[in-house]
Amino acid sequence: MSPAFAAARIIEIVQPVRSLGATEAEIIGIAPLDSATSGELSFLGNPKYRDEVARSRASVLLLPVDYPGTPPAGQLWLLLDNPSVGLTRLCRHLEQLLWPKPAPGVHPSAVVVAGARIAATAHVGPLCIVEAEAEIGEGTVLQAGVFVGARARVGQDCWLGAHTVLAQECVLGHRVRLQPGAVVGSDGYGYDTVKGRHEKIPQVGNVVVGNDVEIGANATIDRARFSHTTIGEGTKIDNLVQIGHNCVIGRHCLIVAQVGIAGSTSLGDYVVMAGQAGTAGHLKIGSFSKVGGRASIVRDLPPKSYVTGTYALPYLIEQKFQVLRPRIPELFKRVDRLEAQIGRAAPEKPSA
Amino acid sequence: MSPAFAAARIIEIVQPVRSLGATEAEIIGIAPLDSATSGELSFLGNPKYRDEVARSRASVLLLPVDYPGTPPAGQLWLLLDNPSVGLTRLCRHLEQLLWPKPAPGVHPSAVVVAGARIAATAHVGPLCIVEAEAEIGEGTVLQAGVFVGARARVGQDCWLGAHTVLAQECVLGHRVRLQPGAVVGSDGYGYDTVKGRHEKIPQVGNVVVGNDVEIGANATIDRARFSHTTIGEGTKIDNLVQIGHNCVIGRHCLIVAQVGIAGSTSLGDYVVMAGQAGTAGHLKIGSFSKVGGRASIVRDLPPKSYVTGTYALPYLIEQKFQVLRPRIPELFKRVDRLEAQIGRAAPEKPSA
Amino acid sequence: MSPAFAAARIIEIVQPVRSLGATEAEIIGIAPLDSATSGELSFLGNPKYRDEVARSRASVLLLPVDYPGTPPAGQLWLLLDNPSVGLTRLCRHLEQLLWPKPAPGVHPSAVVVAGARIAATAHVGPLCIVEAEAEIGEGTVLQAGVFVGARARVGQDCWLGAHTVLAQECVLGHRVRLQPGAVVGSDGYGYDTVKGRHEKIPQVGNVVVGNDVEIGANATIDRARFSHTTIGEGTKIDNLVQIGHNCVIGRHCLIVAQVGIAGSTSLGDYVVMAGQAGTAGHLKIGSFSKVGGRASIVRDLPPKSYVTGTYALPYLIEQKFQVLRPRIPELFKRVDRLEAQIGRAAPEKPSA
Repeated sequence: MSPAFAAARIIEIVQPVRSLGATEAEIIGIAPLDSATSGELSFLGNPKYRDEVARSRASVLLLPVDYPGTPPAGQLWLLLDNPSVGLTRLCRHLEQLLWPKPAPGVHPSAVVVAGARIAATAHVGPLCIVEAEAEIGEGTVLQAGVFVGARARVGQDCWLGAHTVLAQECVLGHRVRLQPGAVVGSDGYGYDTVKGRHEKIPQVGNVVVGNDVEIGANATIDRARFSHTTIGEGTKIDNLVQIGHNCVIGRHCLIVAQVGIAGSTSLGDYVVMAGQAGTAGHLKIGSFSKVGGRASIVRDLPPKSYVTGTYALPYLIEQKFQVLRPRIPELFKRVDRLEAQIGRAAPEKPSA
Repeated sequence: MSPAFAAARIIEIVQPVRSLGATEAEIIGIAPLDSATSGELSFLGNPKYRDEVARSRASVLLLPVDYPGTPPAGQLWLLLDNPSVGLTRLCRHLEQLLWPKPAPGVHPSAVVVAGARIAATAHVGPLCIVEAEAEIGEGTVLQAGVFVGARARVGQDCWLGAHTVLAQECVLGHRVRLQPGAVVGSDGYGYDTVKGRHEKIPQVGNVVVGNDVEIGANATIDRARFSHTTIGEGTKIDNLVQIGHNCVIGRHCLIVAQVGIAGSTSLGDYVVMAGQAGTAGHLKIGSFSKVGGRASIVRDLPPKSYVTGTYALPYLIEQKFQVLRPRIPELFKRVDRLEAQIGRAAPEKPSA
Repeated sequence: MSPAFAAARIIEIVQPVRSLGATEAEIIGIAPLDSATSGELSFLGNPKYRDEVARSRASVLLLPVDYPGTPPAGQLWLLLDNPSVGLTRLCRHLEQLLWPKPAPGVHPSAVVVAGARIAATAHVGPLCIVEAEAEIGEGTVLQAGVFVGARARVGQDCWLGAHTVLAQECVLGHRVRLQPGAVVGSDGYGYDTVKGRHEKIPQVGNVVVGNDVEIGANATIDRARFSHTTIGEGTKIDNLVQIGHNCVIGRHCLIVAQVGIAGSTSLGDYVVMAGQAGTAGHLKIGSFSKVGGRASIVRDLPPKSYVTGTYALPYLIEQKFQVLRPRIPELFKRVDRLEAQIGRAAPEKPSA
């Protein structure tokens, strides 16, 4: 945050419910509560850090409206329903100062094949490649070294980061963001094994990405064997996620880093999959389901499921198991003792 | 699938054992059973979807030879031993129509260092880099933005997708395919810790990839500390897989997305590792072994092993454990009750 | 290893404590004990392979000083406190022969935006992009197709491999190495959900990487929401690792392939995280902690913790559980039998 802001300007941008105290300092940075110092702004976004507020040396603090007390001399408190939203307002302002949208036009080092259609207000950065008949929409930015394959279509106001790949025939809606290194439209993984050799199954479908989707750095989305792999509007996909061919991902899902979704699995809307979770293929995960970090899903889930664990179980059962797990060695000993006391009988009604 | 096909042409391409019914529709797309409509072709590849056949509105259906009944008016059934193989025949045909092999030659924007040898029939696409003394074989295609390091060798009829990296000295056989963003020949991860600092161990070996190997998008294959990391002929590696230095991967293995294989581990031939599985280093996994999704392998496996689970157990034992796992909290209570009934004795013969 | 070395030259480079035997062969390669042949050098680095020494046909062997016996005719033994360190000396020598540092200068195909500062002794390879006001330090090498964003700073003697991305404002110390495809400075994953839509939280911080850090192929390090994501001096990060926004990674940590560290988690110094492990966000992992392969960490760990397993437990408890796990189905049967013998009572003191 290299620009400097007077307190009055910060108040204009953050729009607090009310403010307490005052500071003369110009704000030149944002920092966590425990490391912020004079000239910096901090905030209480997670109640976990509540105890750090009183010790914070920040010049400006964004706090919940019900935060008690008054600021020390030289510290300004801005009270909001949600301090995190106030910080976002400030950061959005900063973002525009730091990274103004690049000017329309095609960099002379870019390779735009004859027949590609680049909208007048689009920006095609250095060393980008746009293949034949591809379309780049109004206001879209290809940062640098981006590859857009033949007949691929990119909507309006998209941002494709450095070194991203949008393979041939794939389609992005409007306001889609691809973080650096993301690959959309790699071949699906499919082989027929014939006489001991895995023969490649052609992957002649594409990927269709809805409006307002974000796809993380080095994530990979495979094109369909035929028809479409689909990412629904508003879904946000984190870094290093793998989505297999012919998956249908619903709208407004959150798919956190390193998740893997095997081919032909569908997710409803508003599904959350936490980091490193995975699913088998050909499953249906119902809308509003939550899948815990590292959970592995091997069967269909009804809507609003909340599951976690290997061979994912309902959240409460898994939690109970995890609490008891360290006591299992002791349980074996307890059963040994019981058997010693009453004698070990021949099996009467096997349980499994 | 933009080209249109008359039914007679589809029959020529698919080569069914026999056909039933007829359609006048021109076929312009392929779709799943439940969403296909008039003018589209669908197929029954997985018995799971059998019930959807009768409801399908596709104009052409590929079905198993023993599928009973007769088609409704306007629907053509093509019966095959394996409908999936018929679909592959059609898609292979489509693939050639959609994506004809690019013409031989080096794009003017590519950087080919003096001393590199590009075969006459090879295609080097825009903004590719081929370093000194590298070799590119006949019929090979470097799509766009591909990096081939010094003295690397690429065989015949390979396809290196956008933004792939083949580092110096690494070797690809014939008909190898690298999906976009794949990296072959990054340094192995090895350090000697000397006085509290991790000193890099030079990685002066290479990677040798056999014929007919495919490597997925953004997958990473490390070069050997010395000698070779080896990928055997016909092995197929999915997206975001990590293969450590000095691994020896056998022939015709299937290594699914996000698997990690630690350094110096060897796989025999025809090993299958399902998604997100992992192995420790310096292990030997015998030929024809199957490793379940997310399984973690921490010891050698004899040939034809079938394992799954964390600290992978034989498949049947793991399955039994997973079935019982949600009942473990109840088991604790049952032992509590038994102890209450007969009194808790002092340990006599500890079991673990 | 194409250069050839006489035995006397090998001894000069490896600096053994003493040598036994002799060979006339010129050494032209390095290979594992079991496959090395005449003209090759091998070594005993892992006691696991001890039995293979006697059978090895290598011309030169690096062995521990206490290795008993004498070499057969035509084989030279070089005895060292740590044979692995001897091999590293040889490989470092080879590395310099094979891959001399490229000459200073900017390749004519590179795009260097006005206002970027490239040190006189830096090398900017083909098709690299250096954006406005970025700085590249003395002796640093950008291999090929590297993207360095606006105002990013790269220290001295760094190596940025092919297709790496260092996003705007991010900072690398000295002697940092980025393996091909690594992305430093992608946006953190953060959204505020407002009326059913996930609104992007701007990520206006950066990534600050200390001296002597190495980051693996296709790994991703997210920029901070504000302030810094930090990677401490000497830390080594393997391929396909994900590090979330605002993480603070200490010094001299080892973070093995495919690990995921969620946002705002901090690691102390000398933390080791083995392959595919993961942590939740907002945790503190104490210095000198060791986290086992695939472990998932969901709470803070004190310094010197040694944990493993899903919902990571102390190493010994997890190991005991894993040993007993295959016997759990039998335990259910044993409790069934006990209950059958003494009758199943009503619950008296529930245990969970």
